[in-house]
Amino acid sequence: MKKFINEPDNIVNDTMEGFVNAYSDRLKKVEGSNVIARKAKKGKGKVGVIIGNGSGHEPACIGFVGKNMLDCNAYGGIFAAPGPDTLLEAIEEADNGEGVVVLISNHAGDVINSKMALDMAEDDDFNVAGVILYDDIASAKKEEEEERRGTVGTLFNYKITGTYAEEKHSLEEVVKMAEKVRNNTRSLSVATVPGTSPITGQKMFEIADDEIEIGMGVHGEEAACNMKMDTAKNIAKIMCDKLIEDKPYSDGDELAVIVNGCGQTTYMELLIFFNEVRKYLKSKNIKVYKPGIGNFVTTQEMGGIALSFCKVDEELKLLWSKETDAPGFPKLLP
Amino acid sequence: MKKFINEPDNIVNDTMEGFVNAYSDRLKKVEGSNVIARKAKKGKGKVGVIIGNGSGHEPACIGFVGKNMLDCNAYGGIFAAPGPDTLLEAIEEADNGEGVVVLISNHAGDVINSKMALDMAEDDDFNVAGVILYDDIASAKKEEEEERRGTVGTLFNYKITGTYAEEKHSLEEVVKMAEKVRNNTRSLSVATVPGTSPITGQKMFEIADDEIEIGMGVHGEEAACNMKMDTAKNIAKIMCDKLIEDKPYSDGDELAVIVNGCGQTTYMELLIFFNEVRKYLKSKNIKVYKPGIGNFVTTQEMGGIALSFCKVDEELKLLWSKETDAPGFPKLLP
Repeated sequence: MKKFINEPDNIVNDTMEGFVNAYSDRLKKVEGSNVIARKAKKGKGKVGVIIGNGSGHEPACIGFVGKNMLDCNAYGGIFAAPGPDTLLEAIEEADNGEGVVVLISNHAGDVINSKMALDMAEDDDFNVAGVILYDDIASAKKEEEEERRGTVGTLFNYKITGTYAEEKHSLEEVVKMAEKVRNNTRSLSVATVPGTSPITGQKMFEIADDEIEIGMGVHGEEAACNMKMDTAKNIAKIMCDKLIEDKPYSDGDELAVIVNGCGQTTYMELLIFFNEVRKYLKSKNIKVYKPGIGNFVTTQEMGGIALSFCKVDEELKLLWSKETDAPGFPKLLP
Repeated sequence: MKKFINEPDNIVNDTMEGFVNAYSDRLKKVEGSNVIARKAKKGKGKVGVIIGNGSGHEPACIGFVGKNMLDCNAYGGIFAAPGPDTLLEAIEEADNGEGVVVLISNHAGDVINSKMALDMAEDDDFNVAGVILYDDIASAKKEEEEERRGTVGTLFNYKITGTYAEEKHSLEEVVKMAEKVRNNTRSLSVATVPGTSPITGQKMFEIADDEIEIGMGVHGEEAACNMKMDTAKNIAKIMCDKLIEDKPYSDGDELAVIVNGCGQTTYMELLIFFNEVRKYLKSKNIKVYKPGIGNFVTTQEMGGIALSFCKVDEELKLLWSKETDAPGFPKLLP
């Protein structure tokens, strides 16, 4: 394995230490806890928004803590959900008397630990609510949406719900916004090359040299199907069709779009792929609103692209594009 | 080859089309020319700052066009300098009556074509000047700095000189600033895994499974030496020592730092590596000012890290950190 690390046991600590020192003007690590939080004093009346996640997917989700995004990120082990104690510490740090919404990306460990943390927080008289996020259409059938995994589409929620909470809506309203964004979101990924586990040094799965897998999870979970490598244009069409068919997104809609690089896919390819998505959606009379193109949720150096759509109205457009200082979020506005 | 492209001959056009459509709120392609430019009307009295470069290194350099950075980027073929005509079109687009500075990353094709374009522009009565940038300490000895290649350290110049020009200094002053930044900058890279040429589908070079190469160029040019893979801490120390020894950067200095991912190296690793750089510099009483950590100048999906230092004073700190809407530049300020 040729990764720039020290002891594998220290990866999480070393990553956090590098991160909070790089962005010490705005972010901090909560003393004694694997929680990344904003440094600025909290404004009165703002509901907290947090998420816990396994590390190894950077910039997700430490890179999404900041003004108009998350208040805290509870940072777990490599590909492992943070424990309930860490999530509780994130809730405590994010609470400002108005309560905290815990966004939960739908994976078994994240759901179990987040629910335990929510119970513990209620016992401690915090006003809390959890919203489970699921967006990966490859991981369960339509009408079984709640069984689907949370993948890169959760980023719409971190940004839109995060910005909404900044406008000082109530806990119930913030929960409703998170549910609305989730319900408007669908994602699908395609993998070309496996990533390497930074702990074991092993490839995370196998793919034939001339094939790609459609529907791979963010931890290398089994794909829905595989196909021969094809042009960006053809792959974009296949993925758009699957997403449009599921939602459905239809004629006249406007979509915020994420073209997410999974690790080693170049920005050049992301731009070419985005261009094909844009043209195909245009042919369906669907408009793209301020795309996010880059590496947001990675699976180490896995090759591949995750495509995610969120149907947006005027309110959601403003919330999606409003500026944030979260280091991992793109500059959507000039 | 499993890259998300269409016809290899169309890579450059497809990439540009994706890019200008993604950022159509601020950027445009100059009609009939491979030049990316700002959309906003030019302020009177501003010297233009441009650069030409081969494509395949995205976000470099199309991603560095924007307010407080470049006015234009003349975008060449894959790893090939743009022709003099394209560079001349970039000069014409960037000129606002105050002249244009052409930053030139030191590679044979870029230098020859830029010099031709400068001659042609002078014949057309434009007020122009070229500044050749070189920063890679592995590519020529000390005292032969002018023979060195331009690599990731050129990013300091795009930002600092770009912001300086925005403040409406004269052509001569902008040239002096570009020279100052160049003279304060040194870079060194280390490669773990070769990238794949998107045209031929071939690996760009070979590296043994347990080795890394120090001093690789941005097109896979021969490295200065190789060594066994080591910890992030040890590699950071070796690279810092070589950079400090060359400049020298010394006790009490403050450095802007770039930790550049070459393609497939994860953000997790860049953060861990940055943390070791930071700690080692601290042990030498050298301070880090607002690091840029991410993929800025890539060589397709090459694995590796380029480390670059620029000694900064109070003026340079302000210029480096001031906000820009260039899509490829990080958010240095909260």
